[in-house]
Amino acid sequence: MTLSDKWFTEIHADIGSAFSLETTEKVFSKQSPFQLVEVFNTTGFGKFMVIDGCTMVTTRENFVYHEMLSHPAMFTHPNPQHVAIIGGGDCGTLREVLRHDSVEKCTQIDIDEVVTEASEIHFPELCESNNDPRAELLFIDGIQWMKDAAPESLDLIIVDSTDPVGPGEVLFTAEFFAACHRALRPDGIIVQQSESPLAHLELIQRMHKNYATAGFSASKTLCFPQPIYPTGWWSATMASKSGDLSNFRQADVENKSFDTQYYNAGIHQGALAMPEFLRKALA
Amino acid sequence: MTLSDKWFTEIHADIGSAFSLETTEKVFSKQSPFQLVEVFNTTGFGKFMVIDGCTMVTTRENFVYHEMLSHPAMFTHPNPQHVAIIGGGDCGTLREVLRHDSVEKCTQIDIDEVVTEASEIHFPELCESNNDPRAELLFIDGIQWMKDAAPESLDLIIVDSTDPVGPGEVLFTAEFFAACHRALRPDGIIVQQSESPLAHLELIQRMHKNYATAGFSASKTLCFPQPIYPTGWWSATMASKSGDLSNFRQADVENKSFDTQYYNAGIHQGALAMPEFLRKALA
Repeated sequence: MTLSDKWFTEIHADIGSAFSLETTEKVFSKQSPFQLVEVFNTTGFGKFMVIDGCTMVTTRENFVYHEMLSHPAMFTHPNPQHVAIIGGGDCGTLREVLRHDSVEKCTQIDIDEVVTEASEIHFPELCESNNDPRAELLFIDGIQWMKDAAPESLDLIIVDSTDPVGPGEVLFTAEFFAACHRALRPDGIIVQQSESPLAHLELIQRMHKNYATAGFSASKTLCFPQPIYPTGWWSATMASKSGDLSNFRQADVENKSFDTQYYNAGIHQGALAMPEFLRKALA
Repeated sequence: MTLSDKWFTEIHADIGSAFSLETTEKVFSKQSPFQLVEVFNTTGFGKFMVIDGCTMVTTRENFVYHEMLSHPAMFTHPNPQHVAIIGGGDCGTLREVLRHDSVEKCTQIDIDEVVTEASEIHFPELCESNNDPRAELLFIDGIQWMKDAAPESLDLIIVDSTDPVGPGEVLFTAEFFAACHRALRPDGIIVQQSESPLAHLELIQRMHKNYATAGFSASKTLCFPQPIYPTGWWSATMASKSGDLSNFRQADVENKSFDTQYYNAGIHQGALAMPEFLRKALA
């Protein structure tokens, strides 16, 4: 079976698999100073954003990723008021964070304004909180921003980044985590996308070590489906300056004032339960 | 990006996606009276079985599917002694069932002996319990076998089938479920693979209706990752003649005498918590 030119294919060379979506037309294409940002219409997944040939986000299934990168950490923190998102230019994570009434300010720092430009046109539902008075969108280097952040000024940091290769690599280091640790308040939490538990176990192990090196007291990995990324199975790894991350504001989840499509209290509890091979690898 | 001839691709036409694995050679190919069974070596997933062009099982990730199709139902039943597997010719589900000391007999009924032949050669680890004295392997029509089964003779039925198209379609009907209901003891349970929650929600809804029509008192859908199937996200749906399926023998899971790679008590509990969209769809 071969795929016609209408199919966009991303090869995951390290694991010898590939994922393809059937497109009908390219509706956005812009070379920014940093990367090539494209958006396609697809036959089954709605709009589909591609950056430098890598699948990023589709209309159909982004809800799982955006909800799982935000709500578990938000409902673990006792009272998240000041939140920073590193990356996240499609603005879907920003939207989820701003659903929480406790938030006074959420700053999204993505180096590439073209990603947000593409999202505002083709994923308007993800951008519906961009004009919320609590939202601040900065298009500068997030690593430098974090180094410059006032100490103990943030409750939650969400690293909604690309893969740990090229410019994204430093976001997975103990040095960057130390800058985050410094910027967080004493009960602060960081959460970061941490690739596939099946394909990138060593990276997840390294992240836990680097969080400890940076001074975080506890860390946990949550797994969830991610249909368009390698292995269809993804993770986020949280770390806290204090507290053990096992508990969350369950009553607040059950009484939350907004709807979700994936996340709920049972899903949160379930995501805290690691698959046996992951539990052993992180023991 | 196009894929060379070395890649095996399965197109999921209904959702406009495709999944590919990089193969190095074909090591098995046999046309049975029912279907074409092939096995490939791959660069990243070990051995890879394909039936009539559809991805079936790989060495690397089959543990999730086989464990989740067997252990949640096995540990929900109070004392599963007599088990039947409809389909399951790769024998991986049989192996998981026979890890349970309570089992006195497990009958696997797959119409096509060639699937088991291919598995015995290329997935020997899945077939390691084929010679267990408690195992019975039959290569006949599983639907007829179930119709002919003695009433109230089984504790657990596992339907480890292909997709609900062609010959597999009848396995998802109320008529087949009624035959299963008749063959189960009063506290009996059936569990069946039930496709992707993201792509096949209507099928899952129909299965719950058909279980109720067939006389089952409760049914539940469990979700889990499935890297090589459409959307990378899969499900199994259980139904019971009595009891509500919310509870399981948690202490027995925590003290089980065998190792697992995916399943544990937390994973079981987590799989019972449905994603919000699925919970609403089944409410």
